[in-house]
Amino acid sequence: MNLKVIAFDADDTLWVNEPYFRETEEKFYAMFQDYLPVHTVARELFRTEIENLTLYGYGIKGFILSMIETAIRISDKKIPVEVVEKIINYGKDLLEKPVELIDGVEEVLKELQGRYKLVCATKGDLLDQHRKLHKSGLGHYFHHIEIMSDKKEIDYQKLIKRLDIKPEEFLMIGNSLKSDALPVVNIGGHAIHVPFHITWEHERIEGNIEHPNFRQAATIRHVIELL
Amino acid sequence: MNLKVIAFDADDTLWVNEPYFRETEEKFYAMFQDYLPVHTVARELFRTEIENLTLYGYGIKGFILSMIETAIRISDKKIPVEVVEKIINYGKDLLEKPVELIDGVEEVLKELQGRYKLVCATKGDLLDQHRKLHKSGLGHYFHHIEIMSDKKEIDYQKLIKRLDIKPEEFLMIGNSLKSDALPVVNIGGHAIHVPFHITWEHERIEGNIEHPNFRQAATIRHVIELL
Repeated sequence: MNLKVIAFDADDTLWVNEPYFRETEEKFYAMFQDYLPVHTVARELFRTEIENLTLYGYGIKGFILSMIETAIRISDKKIPVEVVEKIINYGKDLLEKPVELIDGVEEVLKELQGRYKLVCATKGDLLDQHRKLHKSGLGHYFHHIEIMSDKKEIDYQKLIKRLDIKPEEFLMIGNSLKSDALPVVNIGGHAIHVPFHITWEHERIEGNIEHPNFRQAATIRHVIELL
Repeated sequence: MNLKVIAFDADDTLWVNEPYFRETEEKFYAMFQDYLPVHTVARELFRTEIENLTLYGYGIKGFILSMIETAIRISDKKIPVEVVEKIINYGKDLLEKPVELIDGVEEVLKELQGRYKLVCATKGDLLDQHRKLHKSGLGHYFHHIEIMSDKKEIDYQKLIKRLDIKPEEFLMIGNSLKSDALPVVNIGGHAIHVPFHITWEHERIEGNIEHPNFRQAATIRHVIELL
């Protein structure tokens, strides 16, 4: 590999994210526990999120709006407005969660800094991701943060063009096979998948990736051995 | 001026935006017309928006959430959940508005393209601004779009560092004295203010800017004469 830029996904690659979403979802399901089974509420929430994705994009604000919309629909407009107030507060709590670094991240960044241009490439709400990077204390390791509205092939092509490098000089490291690995190797870049113990349903793919530019690392620390 | 990069603000500089927000606000006020004066509802909505700005940032999703929060508070939790549903739909309508270019924009971009690196530098929701740039048909004039979580001095300093230029090689063109002009001239860049007929209260400043790097253009077409 003749790399110039290494991009790190943020949520569940640099810091813990999905468990906080799960926690909020559990609180959401609990509000309907007396009259709807959890799997129904979960299915309806997921449906709303996916339907709204092209309009809202990724991130917590869209998630809050989708929870409110789901609550109104599944209750047949019978919930009191206090439920909506609660959901807004759950969302605000989520936006104020502390940033918990994943073990080994800082050592890896320290090791790679100076050898490569490091960028942080993530989806999500703009301000929220800026705030998390700031709170994480990792900001100085990165040349800059790229908040991407999606992580499809076209989005990586734009990113690589902007970085003024060739695809084969680009490596993406992240926890999502679907968003961090597959589109990158498909356009000629390199990818290392570092799994996280839970993954949002929308980020999952069936099967594994077999590609010469694709590697698997057990933890973020193992990335170093693959470079 | 020895410029390398010209950045254009998007909302109310390239295309119409604020009038659509005003339209939505009018619909919001109308929902309370039987029991609250418009100026009270307006004041309360603005208060909520400003309070939520550090958490939600700029853009339509935060605006929808602030309308919902305001409706719940000013009604003393007495509104039916149908009102919340309406607000969500107003917000979705706002996200789907057509993009109406401001007169003269395309001629100016055509004229400047090739002579300078042009970027689009705007606040707002990530996906929403990407979509508007796409819908506008102006995407090919710009090297890239920068969605900024804020437009303070520090944000422009980061942008200029990323562009790898000196502040004096940077010109910002936009309709907000507060966000597009003042912070830019304060850090040594150039700014041209092109007024739009309505401006959000939060974007207004008292008085005028007196600075050798600051110019005023009556319309976007007049920018050319100032370069």
